[in-house]
Amino acid sequence: MDPFMQAAIDEAQLGLAEGGIPIGSVIVHDGKIIGRGHNRRVQEGSAIKHGEMDALENAGRQPARVYRDAVLYTTLSPCSMCSGAILLYGIRKVIVGENQTFMGEEELLRSRGVNVEVIDNHTCVDMMKGFIASKPELWNEDIGE
Amino acid sequence: MDPFMQAAIDEAQLGLAEGGIPIGSVIVHDGKIIGRGHNRRVQEGSAIKHGEMDALENAGRQPARVYRDAVLYTTLSPCSMCSGAILLYGIRKVIVGENQTFMGEEELLRSRGVNVEVIDNHTCVDMMKGFIASKPELWNEDIGE
Repeated sequence: MDPFMQAAIDEAQLGLAEGGIPIGSVIVHDGKIIGRGHNRRVQEGSAIKHGEMDALENAGRQPARVYRDAVLYTTLSPCSMCSGAILLYGIRKVIVGENQTFMGEEELLRSRGVNVEVIDNHTCVDMMKGFIASKPELWNEDIGE
Repeated sequence: MDPFMQAAIDEAQLGLAEGGIPIGSVIVHDGKIIGRGHNRRVQEGSAIKHGEMDALENAGRQPARVYRDAVLYTTLSPCSMCSGAILLYGIRKVIVGENQTFMGEEELLRSRGVNVEVIDNHTCVDMMKGFIASKPELWNEDIGE
């Protein structure tokens, strides 16, 4: 397992242990994690802190050249908000744990030149399947449905 | 002046007075403001709190039906991140103060069925022109350049 995807999974599992939605993300630059995070809808009553957004927030204010050379890892295919943030900051590579339980804006990202790689990780799939089955209303809220 | 756009401008001016980037937003449902906010890059060192995102965060966790009937007002054309958030939550109407100083993802929003109205407000234009002229590096950072 790629240690950076493992770190994103660790974040997701931390979120689950907190009673939250198990989606995690890390942002890697120059071989190091510069921001990590997980969905905080439940924990902070947040409508904007998806895993990827939390990782971006925790990375802090970075110069454009850092984002352009960064790789974003996320356990789940990024939704339109997180994809929009990826486009805003010009992140050029995104590694996605899985897109079986939710298909985000991968097509939009690719159409704008982002390299999106889906690794189809069974841990990521199982986490989301278990979560969606146990708390479908919370999941629907998180994706605006 | 539409009182809701005035409220978004008030938010932007509050941000400017705090030393921040003068972009403000309000979200209106059933004739009432349910969330208001302004860009907090400087104030909170935030990479994700654009005006629209701050308004969404301050509106808190809302059911899908509220977002679908809500109108988002923003002093500036929404960037890809904020446009992605609008799409995530299915907000169907967006009123934009101006798009002369920055053209956001209006075309993407319209292609997904969002009603985007640009009112070309001179106060909004003047605020952004003055800000960009005085702090071009901060502005570039905010739009990932």
